[in-house]
Amino acid sequence: MGWGDLGAFGEPSKETPNLDQMASEGMLFLDFYTANPLCSPSRAALLTGRLPVRNGFYTTNAHARNAYTPQDIVGGIPDSELLLPELLKKAGYVNKIIGKWHLGHRPQFHPLKHGFDEWFGSPNCHFGPFDNRVLPNIPVYRDWEMIGRYYEDFKIDLKTGEANLTQIYLQEALDFISKQQASQQPFFLYWAIDATHAPVYASQHFLGTSQRGLYGDAVREIDDSIGKILKHLQKLGISENTFVFFTSDNGAALISAPKQGGSNGRFLCGKQTTFEGGMREPAIAWWPGHIPPGGAMYKLGDIRDTSLSLSLAGLQPPSDRQIDGIDLLPAILQGKLIDRPIFYYRGNEMMAVRVGLYKAHYWTWSNSWEEYSKGIDFCPGQNVSGVTTHTQEEHTTLPLLFHLGRDPGEKYPLSFASDEYQRAMERISIVVQQHKETMVPGVPQLNVCDKAVMNWSPPGCEKLGKCLKPPKSDPKKCFWPH
Amino acid sequence: MGWGDLGAFGEPSKETPNLDQMASEGMLFLDFYTANPLCSPSRAALLTGRLPVRNGFYTTNAHARNAYTPQDIVGGIPDSELLLPELLKKAGYVNKIIGKWHLGHRPQFHPLKHGFDEWFGSPNCHFGPFDNRVLPNIPVYRDWEMIGRYYEDFKIDLKTGEANLTQIYLQEALDFISKQQASQQPFFLYWAIDATHAPVYASQHFLGTSQRGLYGDAVREIDDSIGKILKHLQKLGISENTFVFFTSDNGAALISAPKQGGSNGRFLCGKQTTFEGGMREPAIAWWPGHIPPGGAMYKLGDIRDTSLSLSLAGLQPPSDRQIDGIDLLPAILQGKLIDRPIFYYRGNEMMAVRVGLYKAHYWTWSNSWEEYSKGIDFCPGQNVSGVTTHTQEEHTTLPLLFHLGRDPGEKYPLSFASDEYQRAMERISIVVQQHKETMVPGVPQLNVCDKAVMNWSPPGCEKLGKCLKPPKSDPKKCFWPH
Repeated sequence: MGWGDLGAFGEPSKETPNLDQMASEGMLFLDFYTANPLCSPSRAALLTGRLPVRNGFYTTNAHARNAYTPQDIVGGIPDSELLLPELLKKAGYVNKIIGKWHLGHRPQFHPLKHGFDEWFGSPNCHFGPFDNRVLPNIPVYRDWEMIGRYYEDFKIDLKTGEANLTQIYLQEALDFISKQQASQQPFFLYWAIDATHAPVYASQHFLGTSQRGLYGDAVREIDDSIGKILKHLQKLGISENTFVFFTSDNGAALISAPKQGGSNGRFLCGKQTTFEGGMREPAIAWWPGHIPPGGAMYKLGDIRDTSLSLSLAGLQPPSDRQIDGIDLLPAILQGKLIDRPIFYYRGNEMMAVRVGLYKAHYWTWSNSWEEYSKGIDFCPGQNVSGVTTHTQEEHTTLPLLFHLGRDPGEKYPLSFASDEYQRAMERISIVVQQHKETMVPGVPQLNVCDKAVMNWSPPGCEKLGKCLKPPKSDPKKCFWPH
Repeated sequence: MGWGDLGAFGEPSKETPNLDQMASEGMLFLDFYTANPLCSPSRAALLTGRLPVRNGFYTTNAHARNAYTPQDIVGGIPDSELLLPELLKKAGYVNKIIGKWHLGHRPQFHPLKHGFDEWFGSPNCHFGPFDNRVLPNIPVYRDWEMIGRYYEDFKIDLKTGEANLTQIYLQEALDFISKQQASQQPFFLYWAIDATHAPVYASQHFLGTSQRGLYGDAVREIDDSIGKILKHLQKLGISENTFVFFTSDNGAALISAPKQGGSNGRFLCGKQTTFEGGMREPAIAWWPGHIPPGGAMYKLGDIRDTSLSLSLAGLQPPSDRQIDGIDLLPAILQGKLIDRPIFYYRGNEMMAVRVGLYKAHYWTWSNSWEEYSKGIDFCPGQNVSGVTTHTQEEHTTLPLLFHLGRDPGEKYPLSFASDEYQRAMERISIVVQQHKETMVPGVPQLNVCDKAVMNWSPPGCEKLGKCLKPPKSDPKKCFWPH
């Protein structure tokens, strides 16, 4: 989902009344970022509070490439990483993930081995394969075992776009919340729905209800579901004890737009890129009685920070490692301004940095000419000369600089000769130098792929008669084109 | 001012709290258009309720050219046109215009000859000339006579951007409202401020207060002023008797962005073009006790319609002429859906039409290669192949079609071969045929220019010793490059 999909952020048909109301009752973040323009690394950062280049969710197979966890990925979240649910568990929390995990699907990466107590959802994204013959369909787990597979047992009609998965995930969420309220145990619910990922789907009740087509139907269903979750908390009388945070793991995928992809509003490009459209996200904090309603402030937060609202649970972040995330609570509750750098990585490369309202690009790349010539376009209808480049362009000696206040769309690079450029770059250079000097990259987890590790025979497949025979192991460097 | 300048429409720094509150207390229009992508024709449509091609505010000097009323324009609003204040006068209204008139500056076009009772402001825009020697500076009138000139007597500091004009215009508005309230006479106030037109200005109190630079300072000052006007109405106890409508006369001028120009959000291109960025406008209706708060609806309205809220005054539109505008009141008060065509004209050519959520381009043009090569760019950072063309491209036999729900940015033309294209074009063709068959263009007023008609010696200049000697009359065809 993209920044521009929210009515509160100017989606012209304003079809997110529940999210907009959540924002008006809570705090809308105007400057909130993912840690990566792609799903898996972004989610790894969310749960660890660490940049992907530290927690291992990146690749070194080629320079500055986005990587994630497809079915044949060998790696996943390392045991050495401490995840938010692991920490929360120490404070007595019951943790549940509903939806897409995406931090590795081999047994050692199972979410219940990394702090979660319950799981309902899938290890990988629901896109392809669709036939379960040449390649296994993605399994859906309940806790330790699979209970079926996408397309076979959990239908997604690729022709009509109908699927009731969001409804199933919603019911799971409401049930879990009810159960926790009844048992009086604190809980952490990670509601990781994926209806807006291509192939986009919505349930029958929402199909055709949006001005925006099927993608809009999916957004409406998510919006409606969030409204129902918030109302459920209120009905149970626990809304004032429950902190809710809404955000997205990367910008809208413009290659899938407009029928299967959302909008990043006025921001440049989308998912896969380190332009604002790839990484600026909708974000809302909601906590009635604690967060003053109607807040909308300029605060530089990012997805790593949400994992570090540990203070909510009275916990400290681990002290034995570099944590990039910070505690957002003072900003949210007391309106304290956060003004800290945002780093935009693509794989192993820091492509850009934001300091205050300035953003400096040290490398630019949309995608390769080869891909572009095949019609793969991460910036459709947007071409900023020398900025949305189709080769990896290095600007490390003379970064491209934008002022995101005057120019949120990154369309007017500042003149290298201007005083403003000189002053801003002096400040930014110090930040970048400090960042690079103290950077110790983690062991890259997304380098090796092997068809043998796919979801051929997930735990529980025997009971269902759904075990498939894996091919012989043949580990290879994964190919990451973007 | 552009659609994207409003916080409620996703301006990332959300710096229009008063307009956003006005929207939340009233109705925010999601699909509101100007009648033209340029100032004068748009304002002529606002006050007549008629398309510029009917009321004469267009040119036939060349095909599909934007024209307005510079200092050397010979034409202006014809006496045969009935303006909103002329009609309101019959119902006992006192009418005042504060700010830029722009419907002609020669004596016969004076606003007090066209229904207004009072005027404080200028006949032309405040941009250049700046020295009053080679060419006269623009005069500022109080009612019938000039009381000074821009830059000489009404300072605009081109270096710092400081000018207190918006404050002067605000005070005029508050005083007029107070006077009318005291005299118990109904009033129509046309508050036509122009601080967001380059050269952009703001008063000292607002300079440097925006994240968006000087342009943002100007927007903040306008926003603040509108808040003060609304509060004034409330303080005087007449807010429930006063209908307030906010809109803009064209999209943001992207050639002046980002330092001197605003934002059209996700819409394509800007001022001067018939893409959405040129003509989709912010629009808010406010009338406490009558308009239900928080309305934001898909309604196709346009700037011609605002002049036809004549029903507010218990009046009927004139029946002796074609009126394009419709009465917006049922839509505003009872939420009735308006779904009617929007016509996008550039000069004498219907470039595009919107029917429902479909927009068909019959002609496309951003600007000429010649201008573009000089750095004049109406679509910076936006290039949609075959759409933002630099030659006037005719598509009358096979219009370019966009679905503005899925694709508000006009980036994904529908396939000519699709069923959807066929179905939509069948419907649109009928609308266009009817429109063209019944079109009787007015006599074009913006064809002839003559330096002799400039503001050399406006009425009142003698008293001020500010009369200048006009050159010999030398009427010529005006040159309209866009």
